Amino acid sequence: MSERIPILRIGETLLVSVQFDLEDQMVLNLQEDLAQQIVDKSARGVIIDISALEIVDSFVGRMLAAVAAISRVLDARTVVVGMRPAVAITLVELGLSLGGVDTALDLEKGLAKLRQSTDSALR
Amino acid sequence: MSERIPILRIGETLLVSVQFDLEDQMVLNLQEDLAQQIVDKSARGVIIDISALEIVDSFVGRMLAAVAAISRVLDARTVVVGMRPAVAITLVELGLSLGGVDTALDLEKGLAKLRQSTDSALR
Repeated sequence: MSERIPILRIGETLLVSVQFDLEDQMVLNLQEDLAQQIVDKSARGVIIDISALEIVDSFVGRMLAAVAAISRVLDARTVVVGMRPAVAITLVELGLSLGGVDTALDLEKGLAKLRQSTDSALR
Repeated sequence: MSERIPILRIGETLLVSVQFDLEDQMVLNLQEDLAQQIVDKSARGVIIDISALEIVDSFVGRMLAAVAAISRVLDARTVVVGMRPAVAITLVELGLSLGGVDTALDLEKGLAKLRQSTDSALR
């Protein structure tokens, strides 16, 4: 298995599909790659799909918050999409609020959310 | 790890990011899920990103060809994107031609290719 998660691009948006539990080094690589791609491609948004994840623990929660914070510093907005209902329930039970992380139900709604915020920024 | 690869949707296009070597059961699940989603979402195109794959052997080649064939029967077109240069070289050396599988350099070019073919079909 590759040590790096592929980052796809749709226009000004970067897309990451998280399909398995990430280990520490993969999270570091992902943060590094995302930061580099945001700069290289002048990306304004990052979408992270977690529909494959059956469990989101505090490690994953911190990872998502860190990615969102890094993107924000680089003037890109992060939207987490595809969260399963059971994951949402567990997150709240664990007291994890995903502060600073925006969410949408699926990729399409996430793209719409990013378009909206980019459009309003242009006004 | 989940036994199913997530399938994302952008409009009439389904998107699959293959991030690791798939085992037999995962390939079967993917074919089943894709066929179901093409029907459920009236999808016209399928994009398979293989940028994470460092090796594409005959098993993966057959998988891609099978997905393309299944999609075709359901009136959807398949485009494989993100192939690494080294993978292309290996494929040819192995005598695998990916017959019937359309390719594009990256997700954006793949989406453009699908849009083109859908537009011309409307004429």
